[in-house]
Amino acid sequence: MKKEHFNKTRVEAFSDGIFAIIVTLLVLEIKVPHIANAGSVTELGQHLYHLLPKFTSWLISFLTVCVIWVNHHRIFAQLGVLNHRLFWLNAVLLLWVSFVPFPTALMGDYPLNPLAVLLYGFVMSGVAVSFYLIRRAVLSDGHSQHPAADLTAFAASTRASLLMGVMPYVAATAVAWVLPTVAIGIYLAIPILFSLPRRSAV
Amino acid sequence: MKKEHFNKTRVEAFSDGIFAIIVTLLVLEIKVPHIANAGSVTELGQHLYHLLPKFTSWLISFLTVCVIWVNHHRIFAQLGVLNHRLFWLNAVLLLWVSFVPFPTALMGDYPLNPLAVLLYGFVMSGVAVSFYLIRRAVLSDGHSQHPAADLTAFAASTRASLLMGVMPYVAATAVAWVLPTVAIGIYLAIPILFSLPRRSAV
Amino acid sequence: MKKEHFNKTRVEAFSDGIFAIIVTLLVLEIKVPHIANAGSVTELGQHLYHLLPKFTSWLISFLTVCVIWVNHHRIFAQLGVLNHRLFWLNAVLLLWVSFVPFPTALMGDYPLNPLAVLLYGFVMSGVAVSFYLIRRAVLSDGHSQHPAADLTAFAASTRASLLMGVMPYVAATAVAWVLPTVAIGIYLAIPILFSLPRRSAV
Amino acid sequence: MKKEHFNKTRVEAFSDGIFAIIVTLLVLEIKVPHIANAGSVTELGQHLYHLLPKFTSWLISFLTVCVIWVNHHRIFAQLGVLNHRLFWLNAVLLLWVSFVPFPTALMGDYPLNPLAVLLYGFVMSGVAVSFYLIRRAVLSDGHSQHPAADLTAFAASTRASLLMGVMPYVAATAVAWVLPTVAIGIYLAIPILFSLPRRSAV
Repeated sequence: MKKEHFNKTRVEAFSDGIFAIIVTLLVLEIKVPHIANAGSVTELGQHLYHLLPKFTSWLISFLTVCVIWVNHHRIFAQLGVLNHRLFWLNAVLLLWVSFVPFPTALMGDYPLNPLAVLLYGFVMSGVAVSFYLIRRAVLSDGHSQHPAADLTAFAASTRASLLMGVMPYVAATAVAWVLPTVAIGIYLAIPILFSLPRRSAV
Repeated sequence: MKKEHFNKTRVEAFSDGIFAIIVTLLVLEIKVPHIANAGSVTELGQHLYHLLPKFTSWLISFLTVCVIWVNHHRIFAQLGVLNHRLFWLNAVLLLWVSFVPFPTALMGDYPLNPLAVLLYGFVMSGVAVSFYLIRRAVLSDGHSQHPAADLTAFAASTRASLLMGVMPYVAATAVAWVLPTVAIGIYLAIPILFSLPRRSAV
Repeated sequence: MKKEHFNKTRVEAFSDGIFAIIVTLLVLEIKVPHIANAGSVTELGQHLYHLLPKFTSWLISFLTVCVIWVNHHRIFAQLGVLNHRLFWLNAVLLLWVSFVPFPTALMGDYPLNPLAVLLYGFVMSGVAVSFYLIRRAVLSDGHSQHPAADLTAFAASTRASLLMGVMPYVAATAVAWVLPTVAIGIYLAIPILFSLPRRSAV
Repeated sequence: MKKEHFNKTRVEAFSDGIFAIIVTLLVLEIKVPHIANAGSVTELGQHLYHLLPKFTSWLISFLTVCVIWVNHHRIFAQLGVLNHRLFWLNAVLLLWVSFVPFPTALMGDYPLNPLAVLLYGFVMSGVAVSFYLIRRAVLSDGHSQHPAADLTAFAASTRASLLMGVMPYVAATAVAWVLPTVAIGIYLAIPILFSLPRRSAV
């Protein structure tokens, strides 16, 4: 029995395609407002002001998908090929990611609704858990690892990803139920903190 | 007369682009519900509950396109170049795949309508038949095959694809006419079963 | 003064991305019909029947973009790099191609309106003329040509493209003004005829 | 402490994906007009005539994204890898670019509204400033530079980009507040002037 392995470059291209499309589709959820007096700066200004929650929601998701891309890049740099398990764990990650436009639009429309804000955190927790499971699968399959993989650092990052990735999103999801505005603040803070330079590169 | 051959990498990139876009466009068919009381968890919850058929429809199509990608990956791993016939059979496959968002949205809106559910199965049968024809074309054109192609295993998979790919979809399409809900269950089961590890990798 | 040259692979990837996106966006213009009785096969059937012009319009554009891809593939196989002129002629081609969803949707909504059908032909004539100009630019710039380019055959194909590409679309555009249905038939026939095997591969 | 570096090819593919998607999404903002008499050339003609500002807005953004692509191509040709700072500056550039469909649609709907036209210039100024910052970061990080980078010419282009990229957009943004139509003219002129052949290729 010959085990199936997936071409890393094609899986990467498929994943990058999805990340790039999600990040650009997000803006389509911000609809041009219909104003009565086409030339009125005041009226258009008021309408744009009311779109602020949608702009915020868009900004959060844009930054978060960039951070997801960075994470994906770090993990795939440790891979030579993908086994069956890694391919499907990656597919589950992409499933969560490709769902992002829906909770983004929902949170943009109902930023004070606990359920809407909670759903966003739930999807992001799904992303974070997927990343953790992918990292575990990389560590447990020697055949998939890249010859130059730095496994010690990668194992440390994997443990850290529970504390720095999964936990903040699970916590923010819980907070959303009582204080949606605070949760939105956390959703924005996470990718910003993540984008700061840090010690480990894996 | 010099026969035309297509650059495998560019055809692959074009196909992967289409798969990635389809998989991400699917979520656009799930529209954010309009609720009267923006802060009401109960009202939003009820609306999300009613979107359940659309979420299911989206999930089925997402998994199915992943399975289509895997199938495409397996076939292209056997190819060195593409002749004229293979290029156009691949184009027909992409035609069926790029139509998927329409029956997905239709089935999500009318999950109990036999015609809506049947149309989904019809399109998937089109995909399955296209894959069978592409596999036959690979087997019959020595010039297109990759030097490392495992043709014995590939021929076996091709025969199996009639029984495991074409037949289930044709059967589910027929079932849809009398028991749409059962057919939807089959549409969901097929990609899940397909994603299980299996012996052959071609 | 050092002349600017563009990386062929990146221009190809950018163009392929646009072709793949256009071909998949087309289906978004076919909206799921709203029916009163969600379970009624008759009502849904009637609505789908009335969508026939939109399905036809979608099919024509899908096949045409595939043919455009083939043409693009043939031309780029003759190129090593792209000079300034080639890059911008390619950009003009992409401009026409990325506009295709609009006349496609317009023709799908108003298949009997001479202006709608004419606009489709006008855009396709723009595509055909762009291809002719790109081919001329390839022939006139030795530096951009690939070392293995078959220039004699390519020059013959370039002359033929006036007769087989530009002329049919210009003619169909004129026909659209008096017999829109006949013009739609020609729009469908052109990519089908083009997809038949032929002597030259450039 | 090992510094993180990003794979140039994957960042390029991600960026190219975004450029290609933005350029094709733009046309989706031009909706097919609803006319009462489906066969009437006059009525359709009038509706298309009223869409002229939307066509213009689309054309401007299409050409501008092509110019952005060229600029990005020039900068990345000087790079070997991307450090942390370059990756995130590129992400900010992509943030501005992926927002473009919104101000494009807004300007297409309200071409005489100073605020709508100003917002377009503001976003483009954001793009121009991002390019300047990326160029500065390339010049200041020897490790990221490609061995074959022409740094003298690149430094000159970087200085010129303030005068030729940032300034025109800032000026047009200011003009938009008093003379929106003139500003739209400038927005169209900038990419056209930029597309002319010029001395430097970096």
